[in-house]
Amino acid sequence: MLGDVYHLFSGGKDSSLAAWILRKLGYEVRLVTITFGVLDNWKYAKETADILGFEHEVVRLPRELLNMAVEMCIEDGKPGRAIQFLHEKALEYVASRSYVKRISDGTRRDDKVPFLDLRKARSLEDRFNVAYIRPLLGLGYKTIRELANSIFVIEERESEKLEKGDYEAELRYMLRERGINPKTIFPSRHMQSRVVGIKDDELGRS
Amino acid sequence: MLGDVYHLFSGGKDSSLAAWILRKLGYEVRLVTITFGVLDNWKYAKETADILGFEHEVVRLPRELLNMAVEMCIEDGKPGRAIQFLHEKALEYVASRSYVKRISDGTRRDDKVPFLDLRKARSLEDRFNVAYIRPLLGLGYKTIRELANSIFVIEERESEKLEKGDYEAELRYMLRERGINPKTIFPSRHMQSRVVGIKDDELGRS
Repeated sequence: MLGDVYHLFSGGKDSSLAAWILRKLGYEVRLVTITFGVLDNWKYAKETADILGFEHEVVRLPRELLNMAVEMCIEDGKPGRAIQFLHEKALEYVASRSYVKRISDGTRRDDKVPFLDLRKARSLEDRFNVAYIRPLLGLGYKTIRELANSIFVIEERESEKLEKGDYEAELRYMLRERGINPKTIFPSRHMQSRVVGIKDDELGRS
Repeated sequence: MLGDVYHLFSGGKDSSLAAWILRKLGYEVRLVTITFGVLDNWKYAKETADILGFEHEVVRLPRELLNMAVEMCIEDGKPGRAIQFLHEKALEYVASRSYVKRISDGTRRDDKVPFLDLRKARSLEDRFNVAYIRPLLGLGYKTIRELANSIFVIEERESEKLEKGDYEAELRYMLRERGINPKTIFPSRHMQSRVVGIKDDELGRS
């Protein structure tokens, strides 16, 4: 084993595939799901983590960060800046632990947000003295789809109807609390995925 | 198995690691080493391919492309544009085969050349209807070093003293033929690596 990597994990297709790849590479993968203490949607990520056989930890970040993100959503009328903000804070929080040497996530080549450009990625590594590993960065959507479909049983639904351990669920809830319909902020036909099983033949790969 | 991926391969640390990752992901990896028919340095790549247990093929591209690259080196006084040009031609050549559905290389996040930005990567995929997979794109130098060192036995030397199956060897030769000292074009302390063995415990990974 090469050592620990702390991997931001929602239970979705992308973060599950990235975790699976990290394990294949020989790392000891420790999944981290972020919560702001508003909902218990982290439990869906935990379910997936258990199914895939990974260690899993729920990390609570300050509610103030979620509030700031809600403001960004309202100001912009769209969620991009807020999700980018929360993801950067999550990475920094995990990276700031003294024993963490490697952090990771499931961001992809074709993602707009969350996404750290080369400058931001290197800055994160330098500020916290960690390696930031993104196993999906060099993969297009076709490759991610064929890999994920060959390994996982995946549930796909519209965002609002799918519960998983991402930032979106708590953002939606907080918007509703503020009397704002989340549909006015989040794109309406935004499909999300959650990994609910692993295919039998996956274990046969070497 | 997920199917074939045609992977540009020099025998160096990066393209070897990328090939190893592709195999771990479940692909049938077919290594391709480019030659312009000037030297037989492709044989070093073939040696490494045999050591790692991959299928290997040598593909000859038109000498005219190498000549154009030599002109670029002379014009610029540095090799960046020439190497980028040759790599793009190599990718296009492999991608243009009707049976090729996936192409790949060992380019990394921190590479300047050869490197395809997002626009170029997508254009390559669209023009040839292939997936372009870069397993190392989301990995920094620390991660690549620790992975490669844990898997491979690596020989590291200055470029001029290390024989491998890359574009540089034939470019250097052609420059010398034109009466130009390659040292005036290529950076003097440019370290190169070649994989010369695989570590015993590598096979133990699942």
